[in-house]
Amino acid sequence: MTIGVRRRMGVEERRQQLIGVALELFSQRSPDEVSIDEIASAAGISRPLVYHYFPGKLSLYEAALKRASEDLAERFVEPQEGPLGVRLLRVMRRFFDFVDDHGPGFSALMRGGPAVGSSRTNALVDSVRQAAYVQVLAHLGVQDPPARLELVVRSWISLVESTALIWLDGRRIPRQELEAQLVNDFVALTAVSAARDDEMGALLRRVLREEPADGPFADLAARLGSLAS
Amino acid sequence: MTIGVRRRMGVEERRQQLIGVALELFSQRSPDEVSIDEIASAAGISRPLVYHYFPGKLSLYEAALKRASEDLAERFVEPQEGPLGVRLLRVMRRFFDFVDDHGPGFSALMRGGPAVGSSRTNALVDSVRQAAYVQVLAHLGVQDPPARLELVVRSWISLVESTALIWLDGRRIPRQELEAQLVNDFVALTAVSAARDDEMGALLRRVLREEPADGPFADLAARLGSLAS
Repeated sequence: MTIGVRRRMGVEERRQQLIGVALELFSQRSPDEVSIDEIASAAGISRPLVYHYFPGKLSLYEAALKRASEDLAERFVEPQEGPLGVRLLRVMRRFFDFVDDHGPGFSALMRGGPAVGSSRTNALVDSVRQAAYVQVLAHLGVQDPPARLELVVRSWISLVESTALIWLDGRRIPRQELEAQLVNDFVALTAVSAARDDEMGALLRRVLREEPADGPFADLAARLGSLAS
Repeated sequence: MTIGVRRRMGVEERRQQLIGVALELFSQRSPDEVSIDEIASAAGISRPLVYHYFPGKLSLYEAALKRASEDLAERFVEPQEGPLGVRLLRVMRRFFDFVDDHGPGFSALMRGGPAVGSSRTNALVDSVRQAAYVQVLAHLGVQDPPARLELVVRSWISLVESTALIWLDGRRIPRQELEAQLVNDFVALTAVSAARDDEMGALLRRVLREEPADGPFADLAARLGSLAS
């Protein structure tokens, strides 16, 4: 323990610290509303020193978004064992944890706009979508997806995004309900496609065969059956 | 019939003509790639004259987008009679006609980016989403939607958008199939929500009661029933 000795950070360590501080601020308010002065103050350094590491707010925002994107993409990684419904539910929980932690920044980014929309930020958002897509295909055990499966998986990922955005706007529905709902939505969208396409039908039957009789999918099928009759 | 007399257009008429010419060009290629010179040439006037009516490309783009937004919003208007499935299918057909006509411009806009993303363009996109939302609620006969219904309708609208964008990327699935699929997706998403919520259950039963026994929803329910068993 040394007292009164202020440790000097190396360049990369300081950059990483600034990215962490900026991500925290950009998560809690729209990036429009966060100033370099505030970031400097939160990091305990001077404004010119911030500019020494990052040429401007946009480059710091992009670095923070890159870190958040990598974090989010990792949340879709899940051991490939056990029923699909349970795996997807764990992924949805981690996704909503992320959305909960980064609410205002997530909304500002996904709703777009001049401060947050650039070709680089769009590329980062797309990289997360692509990572999620690859993970879902891996869980389905499919390497070369037919067009209808690609459509279902990609459009479900967009449904996950929009559901999270609507949830953030007032949080009027418990997130646990939405996590389970999105897992069931995945099966429902697959089933609609499977109703008209044999390849999708075979995939759906394979997925459902591995589901436990007391699992969420069986429960949904029973409830839908009683609604339909 | 007068020959050799070139009729002069009034200011508003000329503006409307320019908007039409620009919309055609912005629909067929990404707005990034369309120049004022090209618009001037397609309209048969000089470049300085274009600037006389519109201060720059962005303002002309926004005017074209406004016209396209109004056109698109109108396509969601549909007489409130007959089964819901048939109404929604007609709306989906008109929506895909629009997407077909404006493909590259629609993709560029919805995928965002510096040339097309501004707070005004975002507001126009949101106004179309809102118009679609209001129309769907009117077809459901609901004035003051509970949170779960709002979520299902808004997230379905986002599913419609993402399905159209994925379709445009290669057109590997016939659009007629996707139009019918999206109508069934609406019922499927409602059903997933209804499986856990009595209010949504009552709404779903009311909708299904009005559907014909040989209609698309009954067909879907039968196919899902056989898949589930």
